[in-house]
Amino acid sequence: MSVPRPQHAPLAQFEVEGDCLQIGGMPLTRLAERVGRTPFYAYDRAKLTERVELLRRHLPPEIHLHYAMKANPMPAVVQHMATLVDGIDIASGGEQRVALDTPMAPHLVSFAGPGKSDTDLSCAIAAGVVLNMESEAEMERIAVIGRRLSIKPRVAVRVNPDFELKSSGMKMGGGPKQFGVDAERVPAMLERIRALELDFQGFHIYSGSQNLKAASIQDAHEKTFALAIRLAAHWPGPLRTLNIGGGFGIPYFPGEERLDLAAVGENLKRILPDVRRDLPDTEIVIELGRYLVAEAGIYVSRVIERKESRGQVYLVTDGGLHHHLAASGNFGQVIRKNYPVAIGNRMNADERETVSVVGPLCTPLDLLADQMSLAKAEVGDLVVVFQSGAYGLSASPVAFLSHPVALEVLV
Amino acid sequence: MSVPRPQHAPLAQFEVEGDCLQIGGMPLTRLAERVGRTPFYAYDRAKLTERVELLRRHLPPEIHLHYAMKANPMPAVVQHMATLVDGIDIASGGEQRVALDTPMAPHLVSFAGPGKSDTDLSCAIAAGVVLNMESEAEMERIAVIGRRLSIKPRVAVRVNPDFELKSSGMKMGGGPKQFGVDAERVPAMLERIRALELDFQGFHIYSGSQNLKAASIQDAHEKTFALAIRLAAHWPGPLRTLNIGGGFGIPYFPGEERLDLAAVGENLKRILPDVRRDLPDTEIVIELGRYLVAEAGIYVSRVIERKESRGQVYLVTDGGLHHHLAASGNFGQVIRKNYPVAIGNRMNADERETVSVVGPLCTPLDLLADQMSLAKAEVGDLVVVFQSGAYGLSASPVAFLSHPVALEVLV
Repeated sequence: MSVPRPQHAPLAQFEVEGDCLQIGGMPLTRLAERVGRTPFYAYDRAKLTERVELLRRHLPPEIHLHYAMKANPMPAVVQHMATLVDGIDIASGGEQRVALDTPMAPHLVSFAGPGKSDTDLSCAIAAGVVLNMESEAEMERIAVIGRRLSIKPRVAVRVNPDFELKSSGMKMGGGPKQFGVDAERVPAMLERIRALELDFQGFHIYSGSQNLKAASIQDAHEKTFALAIRLAAHWPGPLRTLNIGGGFGIPYFPGEERLDLAAVGENLKRILPDVRRDLPDTEIVIELGRYLVAEAGIYVSRVIERKESRGQVYLVTDGGLHHHLAASGNFGQVIRKNYPVAIGNRMNADERETVSVVGPLCTPLDLLADQMSLAKAEVGDLVVVFQSGAYGLSASPVAFLSHPVALEVLV
Repeated sequence: MSVPRPQHAPLAQFEVEGDCLQIGGMPLTRLAERVGRTPFYAYDRAKLTERVELLRRHLPPEIHLHYAMKANPMPAVVQHMATLVDGIDIASGGEQRVALDTPMAPHLVSFAGPGKSDTDLSCAIAAGVVLNMESEAEMERIAVIGRRLSIKPRVAVRVNPDFELKSSGMKMGGGPKQFGVDAERVPAMLERIRALELDFQGFHIYSGSQNLKAASIQDAHEKTFALAIRLAAHWPGPLRTLNIGGGFGIPYFPGEERLDLAAVGENLKRILPDVRRDLPDTEIVIELGRYLVAEAGIYVSRVIERKESRGQVYLVTDGGLHHHLAASGNFGQVIRKNYPVAIGNRMNADERETVSVVGPLCTPLDLLADQMSLAKAEVGDLVVVFQSGAYGLSASPVAFLSHPVALEVLV
């Protein structure tokens, strides 16, 4: 018998009735019929709303909450998020088109990312979107396009800070980086912004992502405010906005503990009065992607076959890494770990077994669950991968081996 | 100054005239105009042909050469390959549609892969494609569909061997696997194939991929023939075909040496007379994907910006991991290494510098070259990633961050 890998802490965000996971107010088995085919991603509208409410409860009321739509760019999700948050952050011309189709006012949309094309820039300037400038060269291109269009471009400076976010899944600042302008060069850039008569909004300081440690997020907040205040002294007027980034993580793997959001909120309440002495009228923005959407989404595939090979059981499904690269452990992870997985129509089954869940691709990388203890499954059962609402389908090689694409529904 | 990472051995497959790489009979700068925009993949038709000729020169003439189109499923490439090789191997219903649109006869198309859907199977049976059966359960489903369609399905057994291909980039056999039927269970399966009156073609034994060591490929060939002969004794008639897999690797990274194809061919010539005593009339197939197409392809992006941050130079391009996940080091690699990269319009430039080439995505994973010594590049220059003809665009998360998709041309 195979020995299962370490198990996950139980996830409580979706209810179970009888044996079946409930999502979007209906049993998963019924949802699969309503979708029409597997595999699919389902995102739960109510859970998205609840997550924003949770943040509003814990964060100081003056914090503006932005949705970084790169985490989940499905248009229906972005439309829903636009009704809940105070702004949308975009990372490409494609995302810009989706964001501008929502009711969000363009000046509450901000565009970050290296290598913006002239077309990206002119679209943003024409729309009135705020451009987070990643370099001095981009600033000069923006100024040229603004003059050509006779529009004063709305700009912010993305700062590459002189510190790092500790315990972060992905470091976005500190040391040399392709993102933002090195903090020490910002004063000279501000002078040039004045000379070019750009409509300066403020700073965007983002130091990392997927962090589960409240203490290191708190530390980053304190350093971010200190840096912003230091840099703001080089601008003659008040800062309109300061985006302090996000980086709030969610638990994916066995042993990971949920971020203490209350502690992050309390710390902000504690330090904001001090910040307000230097930045009295600045809108302070927290930008979140994954934290807003990841836990509201599941990926669902169907068991095509139970297979045994030399003492191991494989559940062969119609879904795999071409739809969910991150769950296969092949996107930025060094060591593969299992995402939380369950048999969605056998949530309370007593009979369990240790199995590997694989997809239809001719590669051993196509592994959704490696030797996990799951309810004993049969052909036709529904395999659910949790924590799949962010960086799922859009971050996967959907054309790999030319299998059918997964559907997405917001329910 | 940054210190460059280890350098690659020179690649000679594309000519250089003046300062410019030549591909498809024209300078890269001209090709970029003809394609109309960057980024793009270009595959060189003549190089594909040359590679097949190279194989024909080194392998015994009786070896049938198949193209595993999952390596590059671009329809124009598959059409071209269909005129050169003796069969096409497919891994999905989508690939099947492309393969059946070529002049290749359906009985020379074979379909492998776990989790084939009933629709995949019925399409293959209706077309007359050979189904490489991955399990006993799949065999039973095939028999049911064959009876429904009144067609005798053409089948082969994919065997999970009882040995592994040493030094292989990716192990596909040995131990428990989702691929194929454990060798020890094949005799019983052959009995069932007779009872079900399936049109049995032979075996498919595939033990690994991306192998650069001739000795371990030779070892695998010997073990594969021995296993096939052992299993064939359980079938009353002759084997029609035996697919001994492929696994021929190509050099990607600094320090890697080219596979000694002559040695592989010599060894086959040495052992085939013995094999012929037991399998006199069997078509012996070598199935290659990457080895046929990878070196004929390049990925081309354009420098949008030169950027300096704390002493490091970044070339920010319009291409990145969303088009070429493997080159970013995020597809199955444990440690990131650089693919061979050059500035395609400055191939002989004297002035060089150590730079990192990044894409437009807001993630530090979006890295096409990490501190490589390249010709000093300017905005508008063309960055070329070599060895990009296999597992490039189709194996990449093209929708990630909603940037424009890359084009593909066969020239």
